Formats: sequence, C-alpha cells, structure tokens
Amino acid sequence: MNATITTIETFDIRFPTSRELDGSDAMNPNPDYSAAYVVLRTDAGDGLEGHGFTFTIGRGNDIQVAAIQALREHVVGRSVDELCADPGSLNRDLIGDSQLRWLGPEKGVMHMAIGAVINAVWDLAGRRAGKPVWKLLVDADPAWLAGQVDYRYIADALTYDEAVALLRKGRQGAAEREGLLRKSGYPGYTTSPGWLGYSDGKLTRLAKQAVADGFTQIKLKVGADLADDIRRMRAARTAVGPDIRIAIDANQRWNVPEAIEWTRALAEFAPYWIEEPTSPDDILGHASVRRAVAPVKVATGEHVQNRIVFKQLLQAGAIDVLQLDSARVGGVNENLAVLLLAAKYQVPVCPHAGGVGLCELVQHLSMFDFVALSGTTQDRVIEYVDHLHEHFRAPVVMQNGHYTAPAAPGFSAEMHPETIAAYTFPHGTFWAADRERSTAA
Amino acid sequence: MNATITTIETFDIRFPTSRELDGSDAMNPNPDYSAAYVVLRTDAGDGLEGHGFTFTIGRGNDIQVAAIQALREHVVGRSVDELCADPGSLNRDLIGDSQLRWLGPEKGVMHMAIGAVINAVWDLAGRRAGKPVWKLLVDADPAWLAGQVDYRYIADALTYDEAVALLRKGRQGAAEREGLLRKSGYPGYTTSPGWLGYSDGKLTRLAKQAVADGFTQIKLKVGADLADDIRRMRAARTAVGPDIRIAIDANQRWNVPEAIEWTRALAEFAPYWIEEPTSPDDILGHASVRRAVAPVKVATGEHVQNRIVFKQLLQAGAIDVLQLDSARVGGVNENLAVLLLAAKYQVPVCPHAGGVGLCELVQHLSMFDFVALSGTTQDRVIEYVDHLHEHFRAPVVMQNGHYTAPAAPGFSAEMHPETIAAYTFPHGTFWAADRERSTAA
Repeated sequence: MNATITTIETFDIRFPTSRELDGSDAMNPNPDYSAAYVVLRTDAGDGLEGHGFTFTIGRGNDIQVAAIQALREHVVGRSVDELCADPGSLNRDLIGDSQLRWLGPEKGVMHMAIGAVINAVWDLAGRRAGKPVWKLLVDADPAWLAGQVDYRYIADALTYDEAVALLRKGRQGAAEREGLLRKSGYPGYTTSPGWLGYSDGKLTRLAKQAVADGFTQIKLKVGADLADDIRRMRAARTAVGPDIRIAIDANQRWNVPEAIEWTRALAEFAPYWIEEPTSPDDILGHASVRRAVAPVKVATGEHVQNRIVFKQLLQAGAIDVLQLDSARVGGVNENLAVLLLAAKYQVPVCPHAGGVGLCELVQHLSMFDFVALSGTTQDRVIEYVDHLHEHFRAPVVMQNGHYTAPAAPGFSAEMHPETIAAYTFPHGTFWAADRERSTAA
Repeated sequence: MNATITTIETFDIRFPTSRELDGSDAMNPNPDYSAAYVVLRTDAGDGLEGHGFTFTIGRGNDIQVAAIQALREHVVGRSVDELCADPGSLNRDLIGDSQLRWLGPEKGVMHMAIGAVINAVWDLAGRRAGKPVWKLLVDADPAWLAGQVDYRYIADALTYDEAVALLRKGRQGAAEREGLLRKSGYPGYTTSPGWLGYSDGKLTRLAKQAVADGFTQIKLKVGADLADDIRRMRAARTAVGPDIRIAIDANQRWNVPEAIEWTRALAEFAPYWIEEPTSPDDILGHASVRRAVAPVKVATGEHVQNRIVFKQLLQAGAIDVLQLDSARVGGVNENLAVLLLAAKYQVPVCPHAGGVGLCELVQHLSMFDFVALSGTTQDRVIEYVDHLHEHFRAPVVMQNGHYTAPAAPGFSAEMHPETIAAYTFPHGTFWAADRERSTAA
C-alpha cells in the first residue's frame, strides 16, 4: 500500500539519422535523433513503470542523461500514490531545487531533464489509472488540474482562478468532442517532404504522396539559400495545388531584417506560416516580423524554453501559431500552463513533433486541448514526421492525415526493449557493430 | 612555432559556503559556491596556460563540468597563435555546433560551458601578450574587436559598423582615462552586509564598516518577508545615513504585481535600485515593473542568458541598470556584444559579481568599458563581495571602495593549486576529510 519509486533508470539512446539527411534543415544539417530516456520503477508489485524522455539531436545526449540523474534524490523514495495524485508536487520540488536552478533557471539542459522526469510520472499515472494521458487530463477535475500549474512568473497573465474558469468552460460539450475525436482523430500535417537535404524530385514525390495520404498541410525547410527556396517552394506549390497549406520553417536561421525580406520573397507562393524566423528568445523580434510579413502567419515554440517566454510571445502579439513541444519545457505540468495561456489569448496551438517520439507524446496534449480546453481543431494541426515510430510499443496511428486517439494507458512513451538494447550509446549492439564496421573499413 | 592546445583539463571545485549562510538570499537559501574550472594547456613550451571557469552554487557543478568536456573536440588540437589572434573563431564553432546547440540554444548549462572555455582562451591570450585582459581589450584595434562579436540575432539593434564607430569614439581620451584608472581604480559597491541570513546586528555593523571602507553603495537581499525587509531596510538606512545608496535585490522571488507592491512598500527608505524583481526571462515584466516603481531603478542581468535577451531589455526600456555577469553568457566575446549594446542604448553597466572569482573576472570588462568604450564611471559600480578571494593567485585589490586595476597578465582567473587539491569535489582533501568527520560524528 505504501509503494515508492525505487529507481530512476536512464538510457542514452541515439539513432544514426544523419546518414540519410532525414531531419536536415538550415541550422541542423546532420542531426542524430536521440532520447535521454527515463524509466521509473516502483515496488508496487503491479509491474507498472513510468517511461519518459527528452529529445536531443546527438552530441550532448549524455549531458542530458547526467542532468536527469541529478534529479534522482527528489524522485527515488517518493510515494507512488502521492506522486500520481499530484505530479505538481514533484514539479515544484524539481524546479525549486535552488542549487540546480542556478543552471537555468527553467531553461536548457536542466529544464529538459525535468521535462523527461515529469513526463515519466504522467506516464506512470496514466498506466495506474488505466487511461491514456489525454483521457486522464480530460477526466480531471478542473480545480485539481488548474492546481497542477506553477503560476510563478505568469500570474500577470493567468491566475489560478482564470485557469479553473477556462477548464470549466472547456468541459462544456466535452463528451461530444471526445466521441468526435475517437471517430475521426486529430488533424496532422507532415514535414516529411520538405527536409533541406532532399532533391526536388523527392520533394515533389513526397508532397504528392502527402496529399494522397489525406494531409491538408505540408511543411518545407527554408533559409539556407534563397534561390533554392524559391525553386523548391515553386515545385511544392505545383505539386500540391493552391488549396493545400504549405508552411515554411527557417529553424532560427535569420536576423530580424533578413527574416522579413526572405519571407516576403517567398510570399508569391502563399506560405501559410513562417516558423522560427529568428531566435526563439527574441519576443520583440517575432513581433516585428509578424507585423511585417502578414498575412503570412508567424509560428514558433519548439525551442521556447518555458512558460515565461510563451507568456510574453502572447502578451506582445508576436505569434499567430504557438508550437509547444512535449519535451522541451518542464513536461506536462508546464505544458498545461502553456495550453491555458494559449486558450486565454485565443492563439491556436500547433505542436512541434517529429524527432523521436515527440509525435507519440504531444498528441495527448492536443487531444486534451480539443476535448476539454479550447474545444476546437480549427486552424490546429499536430506536426507529423514518419521517422522512428517503429521503436515504440504503442506508436502513433495516422488515418487520412489524422492522429488516431491512443487507447493504451500511459503517455505512449515506451520504447521496445530491443530498441533500447540496440541503440543505447555507445555500447548498444547497433553502435558496437557500427564501430566494428568502421574499424574494418 | 606551431603550438597547439594539447589538453582541456576540468575540475569540479566546490566550497562549503552554505554552512555560514554567506550568500543566502530569498531564492538561494544555501548556496555552496562552486566553479566548473578549466585549464587549457599547450605544447608551446612557454609554461603559459589558460584558466577559466563558470560559477554555480553547488549541485549540478558536475553537469557543468561534463558540458565543458563536451566541447573538447573543438578546442584540443587548435593552433594557439590562431586561437589567441581570433577567439571569435572558437566562439563561432562552439555556438555553431548544431547538435550541442539543440540543448540551448545559447542558454543554460551548455552556454555557461562555452563561457568557461572562452574565458580561458582570453586568459591565455592575455598571458601570451603579457597584458591583463582589460588592457588587451583597451589596446585592441576597434575593427578587430568589433569582429569578435557575433551579430546574429542582434543585427536589428547593433551592426558591425555601429560597433566599430562606438569603439573608435571610445578611444578618444582613452590614454587619460587609463591613467585615472591606474591611479584611482574603478568604483565598487558591497553586498557583504545584506545577506538574508544575517542578524540585524551583523547587518548594521557591516553596513557601517562598508561606509568606513569607502563604499558609497551597499546592497540588501529582500523578498522573503515584507515585515523583515522593512525592519532590515530601516536598520540599514539608519546605519549608513541618507547619502549612501542602498540597492535591494529580490533574486527573482516575485511575480510582476507582487514586485511592484513590495518595492513600493520599501520606497520610504529610498532604495536605489530593485534588482531581479522577477524572472530574468521576463522582458515585458521588467518593463512593467520599471514603469510602476520609478524613481526606484530596475536592475537585472546576472541570470540573463545571452545577448538576445539583453538586447530586448534595452529595446523595451525595461532596465535602468544592466548587470552583466562574466561567466553566465558565452564569455568575453558575448560580453563585448552586451557592453556595446549598453553603450549604444546609454544604459549604465553595473556588473554582477561575488560568488567565487566573479569579481576577479568582471573587473576587466568594466575597466575596458571605462577606458575605451563608454568612457565614464558615472552611475557605474562593480559589485563586490568579500568571499573566497584568498583562493586566487592574483585576487582583486580593493582600495577606498575601488577595484585597483590588475597588473598581472591574463584574466585573474587562476586558483592556487592547493585550493584545487583541497576543494575538488568529491575527492579533494577538504571533502574527503569532511566525509570522515561526518562518519565519525
């Protein structure tokens, strides 16, 4: 009855994606998609574990793992019942560790480590409740759910009382929307055609395939060379026709004046949004870009470090589209804050996904938002990239360009044991064999 | 002639400062002042090394050390001549490592690691030139120095050409100011009386001592309890009289509305500035606080993550006083950007210092700014805290409340070998004996 967390096991899991130029963009030419992966084990005797991770692109994944281990003393020995009844209590302890806080605060390596652990706790909580995390959130009492948010530094934009009111309002019609979700899923868009390293032929083929698969929006990476971007954008527009939305993504490549100039140069192809036109830290810069490039929308968020920066992006009217990431900020609790802020400011959330496992995680947040918070999928889509899903026990299921509502309890975060055994760096079987191959060559 | 960097040695150095309540504040009740310390060695045969560090407050210093080691491949094997002739080339490579960049970008653990390494390079460059770093900067060609700055993400506020013009203008009268600096030093202020853990008696005694020592400004930590702060602020004002400036520092304790209310409640004691009233990420929040609490000034910077946030604090008119830190951002190169931005916006820089070794480092930046950039010490003071200086080979020398200009070549960053041997965690002699003592007790 008094089960506790007994261990927090970590794995440095890396996939050699750079070899195929999958995931290449103007700032990230050779990512090796990686996960700093956490398993929480308990002595409850029910066999249930909590799995979570944060996403990196290769080097430094070991630092991320070390940062997760630095949180161990806050986690191990904690009552499982109390933890699952109030993940926010752990969130407060992790964010509040004053010595570790110095390394952020609430940003970068330490904050992503907190996100991995908090996500693992929600996975465990979902499994113990026998519900997928989206459903756990949908069924939660609004007062309790609002209490999961840390209002420090956002109270000038969102209070607990406002959060409760937004969540109560969100429940009106929730049962009907849950039915719709289970029937039709949640709309996605695909980035798979548009990686910078792909040829025009591959881009055209994959763009047509995306439309055939039911997607109504695709995305192209831009920002390395303007002439290339004009040619690729023309090819993409020709391939998909006028009615499919084409987002473009500069991955932080530009200064503000350059972002404005470049986006305007691509305007003839009617891009739907320009994503990450400049530094994710530049709130005022995004506001300037937005004023200058309308009606092209401005989107950012995958590298936004925490709720405090999201708050300001909304206060400053700097973005049309908020792209939260499931594993960049402090996990589910902070993402609840971000969803509530977006709902209050009525800005649509179109989450960042892809990488490894980000689609699996983030679908839960958008589905909760649709059923029990914003209540709509209007102008809302979750990014979809068709990489590495085969490594998960309960991978996302796409149907007609939509994410199908997960049925399995938990956060869809668990990888196959075979994957962990093969891709743990540097001693997993894949990496060991890889070193032998290069030695032999 | 073709000397290269042969090793990058790192040390996890921690001091047990929490046992004395030195350094206690509203957010950091028990800091163990620590340094993630770097030594660059070469095969030049001249015995010269580069020493640098970033500052933390205890737990997580090992993660910081691991992050520095992750940069090793960019450093080891590099030509010493080329590196010292252009530290900016390394800065670009470190910030531009796309896989490591994902863990920031340019913030938190990875960025502080870059700061430690870049600071060590400037230490080495100073030693090879036979000059303290402030003098190396003062003597540098403006075009070269402006080329040390990364303008990505700040070009909307500062261009290379503007930087060159500011530096050229800064050289007018530089020789005369250098004479003044060598004669009278650079003004400091002291935080030593005002730690939150100190009794009113100790506060009063130390405040009076500070005035007797020639300081014209002291600082009090606030933010834990308003009644306490009113009592302590009254004691301090009584102790120092009306003509000494008393800054107050909340160390990020408040939400925006609370910051305004609390500062107004202390206004009767004429605080000079309120420091870190809220999150260092909250640019718009600081602007709101500043509008509401004038004529009390608003100061922040010790936790500002990079030049991009400083740029916005200046663009938004959010601060009266800019408190750069020598080891939080990416080292000397990024701090040149911050000093240039402050000069352009005509906001005085009053650096954060204290901790371990931050006084030693940052004096060089302020002295350069006085002699060859802003050209003034009007309303400018460097924080001074009288802790842990005895661990440095060339500690700061205070005279009549002023920092004396360092004469030794380099960045004043080098600790005594005995200090490193004793305080390296967890196996240094101090920590080993400490464990024995607690086992015996």
